[in-house]
Amino acid sequence: MRIFGGIETGGSKWECAIGTGPDDLAATVTIPTTSPEETIGRAVAFFQREGPVNVVGIGSFGPVDQNLSSPTWGYITTTPKPGWAHTDVGQELSRRLAVPVAFDTDVNAAALGEHRWGAAQGLEAMCYITVGTGIGGGVVVGGRPLHGLLHPEFGHLRIPHDRDADPFDGVCPFHGDCWEGLAAGPAITARWGKPAEELDDVEAVWQLEAGYLALGLASVISILSPERIVIGGGVMNAPALLSLVRDEVAALVNGYLLVPALGPEIAEYIVRPALGPRAGVLGAIALAAEL
Amino acid sequence: MRIFGGIETGGSKWECAIGTGPDDLAATVTIPTTSPEETIGRAVAFFQREGPVNVVGIGSFGPVDQNLSSPTWGYITTTPKPGWAHTDVGQELSRRLAVPVAFDTDVNAAALGEHRWGAAQGLEAMCYITVGTGIGGGVVVGGRPLHGLLHPEFGHLRIPHDRDADPFDGVCPFHGDCWEGLAAGPAITARWGKPAEELDDVEAVWQLEAGYLALGLASVISILSPERIVIGGGVMNAPALLSLVRDEVAALVNGYLLVPALGPEIAEYIVRPALGPRAGVLGAIALAAEL
Repeated sequence: MRIFGGIETGGSKWECAIGTGPDDLAATVTIPTTSPEETIGRAVAFFQREGPVNVVGIGSFGPVDQNLSSPTWGYITTTPKPGWAHTDVGQELSRRLAVPVAFDTDVNAAALGEHRWGAAQGLEAMCYITVGTGIGGGVVVGGRPLHGLLHPEFGHLRIPHDRDADPFDGVCPFHGDCWEGLAAGPAITARWGKPAEELDDVEAVWQLEAGYLALGLASVISILSPERIVIGGGVMNAPALLSLVRDEVAALVNGYLLVPALGPEIAEYIVRPALGPRAGVLGAIALAAEL
Repeated sequence: MRIFGGIETGGSKWECAIGTGPDDLAATVTIPTTSPEETIGRAVAFFQREGPVNVVGIGSFGPVDQNLSSPTWGYITTTPKPGWAHTDVGQELSRRLAVPVAFDTDVNAAALGEHRWGAAQGLEAMCYITVGTGIGGGVVVGGRPLHGLLHPEFGHLRIPHDRDADPFDGVCPFHGDCWEGLAAGPAITARWGKPAEELDDVEAVWQLEAGYLALGLASVISILSPERIVIGGGVMNAPALLSLVRDEVAALVNGYLLVPALGPEIAEYIVRPALGPRAGVLGAIALAAEL
């Protein structure tokens, strides 16, 4: 039997695991994301110590190059994260561990994990969205992560921004008030002057946040028509938020698409990840298994 | 050999054809869209007179119900077109012609036609967009039209709307200033007081229009990551428009996604339909062929 390694490379930490699925993880480790050299070195050491593994799957923060015919396949490309732009992750790990590597975005990996073992099993089209230090989205259609031209980049879609109601300019260095520029964690902190965790009781924060998240989700529904939306990430831990988001999405659709999922059954349509924070690393194992 | 019938049911006319592909159409007819009874009757008469056909594919204006397990499969559902809401098209044609029917949206059919024979052959993920009396989008991923929860409904996505620059409220009866509410043909007519065809020389019209179209396309690119966008419809016939749209999309992406298709090669990324106005009816034949 083949043994798989999975890595979710995040902006603040890497989650690594060895196994074949959620009920069979032989070893796991969390590595803080420091320099590429140090971080990759620790991941290599983990797999050498706890392995061997036959295939490694990587779900990486992005944008990434997952075009198999590209010379920079396996690279993190234009990330604003200091020290990490244009960094070879996939080829380097493949070389140092001498195994084949499957490489995709962190959110495509998490989407695949949720599709295979979690909250969206067996669906034709689903997406996984994380709202944290950024907003990312992964898509699985027909059982496979969607790439297309590059890969989905949900965070940078443009949504309506009423500057009378919310004069905040947004924090995206590329686009200002794109979806993540208005609604990811750093936008909340910058707009209200303290981090989301300290704003649980301030109703206006979450009403505004739910409105922005719903606008993006309505775009996702219009374009992708997912059968279920799995949404996680640190910002979604705010107690009132998910319920407000569901209400706002139903209000935005406004009876145009007459399906129960966008009305009375919306609580089963927009859901939390069933795999919780392990969706990404388990999805990376699923990527490895499908290579 | 099986002979296929194809129907593109449009809001103003139905295009019907018999054959197997773009180089093999034995008969075609254009029927004005009047009442459901009269229009369906004329389509039935055409296939009875020019057929027989073994399978019929229908690409319909929508929203439609293409869920095979639904009792209202084959229906046009919540369309604002007078007389056509909740109309059985697919089951009725199947019954009266006594053949199996493949039923999908007009734009999913056109997307499939362009994927099979046109401007997006062999791509993993592509979309077809029409900008006319409404804005519609069809999606093909992995060789198959995307349905998901319902089907894509590109026209109703929300885009930024700067009311200082453009105080126009939009014309969508459901959402006011959604994408098609701001940018489809009726919005142009209502905003400027005359139809698009009479405004070719008014630069401000097309600069504003290109900006709105680009905002929607940027959302499509963020969420779906298509390898090519095929865009047609009456509004796109304005001489200056397509080139302006390409420029605006590249400006919106603003270097975040570093691929030639979104920069110097954008003229090969956002393209006109290769099948022209026959994309829909040919796509309907492709739907029939794949049933």
